[in-house]
Amino acid sequence: MAAQKINGAQSLVQTLVNCDVDVCFGNPGTSEMHFVAALDSVPQMRSVLCLFEGVATGAADGYARIAGKPAATLLHLGPGLANGLANLHNARRASSPIVNVVGDHATYHLQYDAPLTADVVGFARPVSAWIKESKSAKTIAHDAALAVQAARGTPGNIATLILPADTAWNDADASAQPLPDIHPTDVSSQVIDAVTELLLNGKRSALIMRGTALHGPGLEAAGRVQAACGARLMCDTFAPHIELGYGRVRVERIPYFAEDIVKTLTGVEQIILVGSTPPVSFFAYPGKSSWCTPEGCEITYLAHPSDDAAGALVALADALKAPTQGIIRAPYQLSGRPSGQLTPTAVGQIIAEYTPEYAIFADEACTSGQALHSAMATAKPFTHLPITGGAIGSGLTLAVGAAIAAPERKVICPHGDGGAAFTLQSLWTMAREQLDVTIVIYANRSYGILNIELQRVGASGSGAAALSMLDLHNPEMNWVKIAQGLGVEAHRATTAEEFASLYSSAMNNKGPRLIEAII
Amino acid sequence: MAAQKINGAQSLVQTLVNCDVDVCFGNPGTSEMHFVAALDSVPQMRSVLCLFEGVATGAADGYARIAGKPAATLLHLGPGLANGLANLHNARRASSPIVNVVGDHATYHLQYDAPLTADVVGFARPVSAWIKESKSAKTIAHDAALAVQAARGTPGNIATLILPADTAWNDADASAQPLPDIHPTDVSSQVIDAVTELLLNGKRSALIMRGTALHGPGLEAAGRVQAACGARLMCDTFAPHIELGYGRVRVERIPYFAEDIVKTLTGVEQIILVGSTPPVSFFAYPGKSSWCTPEGCEITYLAHPSDDAAGALVALADALKAPTQGIIRAPYQLSGRPSGQLTPTAVGQIIAEYTPEYAIFADEACTSGQALHSAMATAKPFTHLPITGGAIGSGLTLAVGAAIAAPERKVICPHGDGGAAFTLQSLWTMAREQLDVTIVIYANRSYGILNIELQRVGASGSGAAALSMLDLHNPEMNWVKIAQGLGVEAHRATTAEEFASLYSSAMNNKGPRLIEAII
Repeated sequence: MAAQKINGAQSLVQTLVNCDVDVCFGNPGTSEMHFVAALDSVPQMRSVLCLFEGVATGAADGYARIAGKPAATLLHLGPGLANGLANLHNARRASSPIVNVVGDHATYHLQYDAPLTADVVGFARPVSAWIKESKSAKTIAHDAALAVQAARGTPGNIATLILPADTAWNDADASAQPLPDIHPTDVSSQVIDAVTELLLNGKRSALIMRGTALHGPGLEAAGRVQAACGARLMCDTFAPHIELGYGRVRVERIPYFAEDIVKTLTGVEQIILVGSTPPVSFFAYPGKSSWCTPEGCEITYLAHPSDDAAGALVALADALKAPTQGIIRAPYQLSGRPSGQLTPTAVGQIIAEYTPEYAIFADEACTSGQALHSAMATAKPFTHLPITGGAIGSGLTLAVGAAIAAPERKVICPHGDGGAAFTLQSLWTMAREQLDVTIVIYANRSYGILNIELQRVGASGSGAAALSMLDLHNPEMNWVKIAQGLGVEAHRATTAEEFASLYSSAMNNKGPRLIEAII
Repeated sequence: MAAQKINGAQSLVQTLVNCDVDVCFGNPGTSEMHFVAALDSVPQMRSVLCLFEGVATGAADGYARIAGKPAATLLHLGPGLANGLANLHNARRASSPIVNVVGDHATYHLQYDAPLTADVVGFARPVSAWIKESKSAKTIAHDAALAVQAARGTPGNIATLILPADTAWNDADASAQPLPDIHPTDVSSQVIDAVTELLLNGKRSALIMRGTALHGPGLEAAGRVQAACGARLMCDTFAPHIELGYGRVRVERIPYFAEDIVKTLTGVEQIILVGSTPPVSFFAYPGKSSWCTPEGCEITYLAHPSDDAAGALVALADALKAPTQGIIRAPYQLSGRPSGQLTPTAVGQIIAEYTPEYAIFADEACTSGQALHSAMATAKPFTHLPITGGAIGSGLTLAVGAAIAAPERKVICPHGDGGAAFTLQSLWTMAREQLDVTIVIYANRSYGILNIELQRVGASGSGAAALSMLDLHNPEMNWVKIAQGLGVEAHRATTAEEFASLYSSAMNNKGPRLIEAII
């Protein structure tokens, strides 16, 4: 590249591609025009336009969870970054690697405090593990290589690179080459030996797993560990990426509510943490404990989040002389075809029946999704991506990114109606890129979870004013029209038969479809 | 209140009402359930549900600009605040008073780093002039009174009050009474005398005005100053609140692009700043100056943003012995009824003809809005609220807040299609509250401003990949369906006649309407 004259933006985009970051989800503005122009000189970079930055950041999260590597985002100054922060919060909780490129005013323009000037670093700090304001077109390429290296750590990180406009348009020397990956820490043999001893001491054990422990070789090794010592295999409610369904090692999902967590963990005498942290309540409730580990239960780390969790499980299985036979796997078992009234249970059964194998579920069906989880546990093998940080409006965006990471797989997006409204602009990008996503909107016209929570937190005297703040009937959103307005084919189902017909049709066709399930 | 047992949330809501903050725009979650429940015990608080927090914060901005006092927002932890930050950036640039109430985990729950835990103060800092994390239900009422006092300063401030869940549900003693307003600083007679002398020195002067200088007695006094000394009256492109149209003192709006600003200010020898700052370019451009004041032009402050700008103008007019007669006012002058092709000019002319007096324009028609500005300059008197901080997705949300602040006035929302997609959830709240808003979407299927900017920044080699990032044709958004899907009556206009018919019908009826103007 050194021979040809390039500007900072071109050196940045070429460096990202050199570093295997070749997808960019963005919504650019004036300060990013040179980045946009550079897309023509670096055709290996796929640039995906989003109508709202929260779609871009959520898509980068979904992409990272499936591709196992970072995408870039392209965001417009402080406010553009701000619009992406909620889904960056989810991505941080998912440990997804992301390289945010945030355009800013030219370095010499900041002094004038023009209207769009904001504290970009301040906005970035709560979600970013790595932040750098580039100062020159000569160094932006190296800064980009550093950002990718930071993002690709274990667990994945959010790296935010701030790109002043003059750093993009001034002359650069060349693009940069990738920097070495920082590998996860190997778990020591002392730890493996200690955990082996624990698992053979006769106490009732549970492994709580996350990250690489929940898919591929890590999950297989966990199955061997279970076969050798009978430990329960568990993951937290919002484990960012887990492989489930027929033939997979069965993992129990720890429930959402504190009292259910306590019930699930009753009798567990020792917890082994594999890339995870101790189970706690999602919210606090008056008079209830936030800490959910049973009294007297010992907690031991096999692998911290920065460790090689999958490698540790393989080493542990070997130390236990665990067999590769006798692993407890999910059977294939459907629960019959429902008819008549369309209920969450019926929706779950139908999805379980018709979804092809290796589908990806980008799931934000909070209150309505329980029946789906049950039905899918013994359906064809699939990958599950939930909302991880509790920032609503994640599901549709994860679906965008997952579909771009794995164009050959079906992406299913079961979503509550309240949550889907947060990032409904995702539908437009699905239509634009013709992504193979089937969205199921559970239209209960309510913030369902809040109607439950209002009782649970002991908020008394809930009259009309309070209840109206949780109710979405006035007016009812028409998701068919909204989707069509954003370019996505959409239909409404009011019975189980209608839903089965619409869903099976979606499974037999490519491209985005939305089904509004009136439940 | 002391006699009756109340909790922290009730003491907070009652205190807000005591302090004349009686509208709350929100999207609550579990940690805000006690605040929601408190709405029933304090019926004076009007709570407006929004499907996305950016709608809530933008509505609070629009409300403040029209009501001249703060509304509250109700946001759900760090991510809920994050979703509202871009429009809080606009509100900060508008100096709009807002009291953000951000729920958080119970104080004792934060230690567990549950998924929704985030650096709430970190998110709040870049946009807030005042931040406090309440620590106890006993003190939340006083904290709320402090927040309102901070918000009501001059110019208005964003005050962010963080409300841990246990601070809401634990017992409080009583609500608090309002604290004294902090009045704006009076401009000294020395400054008045000095500016009087300047304005009589024979040089060509321009007053650049903002805040209270642009409406009511301030604007009238500015007209007297002009009548006395011939100074030009100007405001910046994004002055947050200005009264325009027939009978009003005419104020020149400084243009958006740097070279146009320079042209407009050519010949000005002295600039008097009245609650404003010196004119600078919105963005930097290669080889162009960001500083737009003519060389040799003197800059003098009559009033800083924290001063009483309107009072200073009255004192200045009196010192100049300015008459109350002979003020230059806008005439009433329409430019004829267009027919045939629907162009931005035709849209502007039709809106100018049919809009009733004292309408409020919540305006985010960036590239298409110039013709509307020209036509409205001599139409019936109206109030103009533009996007102030350049964070796209402001117009629809300002309309929500303005309509709630002034239910007897028509609110017009001319909006670009690209920008409207950012906060389209606003439409649902308009339908829910039956707000009297007429939205005109300029459907040019493009980020129009960026097609201009791509050339202006000198980004060369713009091929298909670059241009596609600015193009919204694939797919075309259907705003009629989107609006109907969100509960708002909507129609499409493709000719001037159709637009005139739809717009005049909207003016003759109450309630929300959307017109998609295909231009």
